[in-house]
Amino acid sequence: MHRIGYNVGILDADITGPSIPQAFGLTEKLYGNDKGIIPAETRTGIKIVSLNLMLDNPTDPVVWRGSLISNTVTQFWTDVYWGELDYLFVDMPPGTGDVSLTVMQSIPLTGAVVVSTPHDMVSMIVAKSINMAKKMNVPILGLVQNMSYVLCPDCTTKIELFEKNDIESYLKRLDIELLGELPMSSKVANMSSHVMYETEIHACMDSVSDKVIEFVNSKKAGE
Amino acid sequence: MHRIGYNVGILDADITGPSIPQAFGLTEKLYGNDKGIIPAETRTGIKIVSLNLMLDNPTDPVVWRGSLISNTVTQFWTDVYWGELDYLFVDMPPGTGDVSLTVMQSIPLTGAVVVSTPHDMVSMIVAKSINMAKKMNVPILGLVQNMSYVLCPDCTTKIELFEKNDIESYLKRLDIELLGELPMSSKVANMSSHVMYETEIHACMDSVSDKVIEFVNSKKAGE
Repeated sequence: MHRIGYNVGILDADITGPSIPQAFGLTEKLYGNDKGIIPAETRTGIKIVSLNLMLDNPTDPVVWRGSLISNTVTQFWTDVYWGELDYLFVDMPPGTGDVSLTVMQSIPLTGAVVVSTPHDMVSMIVAKSINMAKKMNVPILGLVQNMSYVLCPDCTTKIELFEKNDIESYLKRLDIELLGELPMSSKVANMSSHVMYETEIHACMDSVSDKVIEFVNSKKAGE
Repeated sequence: MHRIGYNVGILDADITGPSIPQAFGLTEKLYGNDKGIIPAETRTGIKIVSLNLMLDNPTDPVVWRGSLISNTVTQFWTDVYWGELDYLFVDMPPGTGDVSLTVMQSIPLTGAVVVSTPHDMVSMIVAKSINMAKKMNVPILGLVQNMSYVLCPDCTTKIELFEKNDIESYLKRLDIELLGELPMSSKVANMSSHVMYETEIHACMDSVSDKVIEFVNSKKAGE
């Protein structure tokens, strides 16, 4: 593993279901100094702040009321010594509750990438999130479809779990671009701790990150 | 379709991501009379209350702070004319936030059924929910594994998306019973609007509902 070419941070705003540390195999607890909370660092140099890196036991439930959850998210933005970053990703929980509202109100977002399973797309949950972002004037870069299909290991059939047509008409109706499709695979779930050989997954990831970089650069140029 | 043999209600406590009405093909708006809010009814006679049956547009985002969300959940319990019910199911959002806390504090629950994908099980999110229920003295009936496997339509291979061993050791560690496994299929997602021929899905559903009925009866007998 080598360091990635950018200074990248991830703010895990999913306070009650923080999964970022495990995805990157991080367990060491965060500490602070006079500059603020110091983020953990992955093997490739990505800075991570997550409530799960502050709990005595990572399976402890965080049974907090919304206002406390919102304050924590704000602190992850104001009280963390992020240093010089090119990109800060904010991982948000599903839905349009307190955390989404706090993130969109208190962090100056360049844009939002919507991640969804085909099932949640066809239901109204994704439309709600997109409509919320529009209301809050957060530009939407596009949608990444997770658990989009499964590759059969025996016959290599690509099993689409939902009707392609439904998805396409849905995207069109919401006027949103499909950035990429990820297969349902334990290799995606454990991506960061495995070396990735799967070219399909790699290709999707590259295409998504290219589009994110391009979008952010165009915003910077317009400033 | 015939009416089911019990009086059943579903309280959709997922205020910011309410998906129950769509799952049952319900769109008509709720109304109230002097008895309270009158639940919608599915073709088989299940009573449903969901915020999505109160919105002007089902894709409108519900951008509310936690306290308002909690009040709504409480009202769905206190201000709805549920009538005589044998079973009331409360559909909760993922995580251990406001709604979970409110449901466990203000509704006298007989028990909780945990529904999870293999991915969320292996992450710590499910453990957090289970630990929360234990803290709040809510008995856990067991776990239903959703999106457990995929059946290849070409070669009928059963594709397990996660290591069986990981799941089993996980359940053992949490001391929780596996009630059933559902395949990943658009037919499960749209279950209520389709006639279900899939014997595997039927078998899982029957086994889960038998266990729920048995558990509730044993609790009633012990009262």
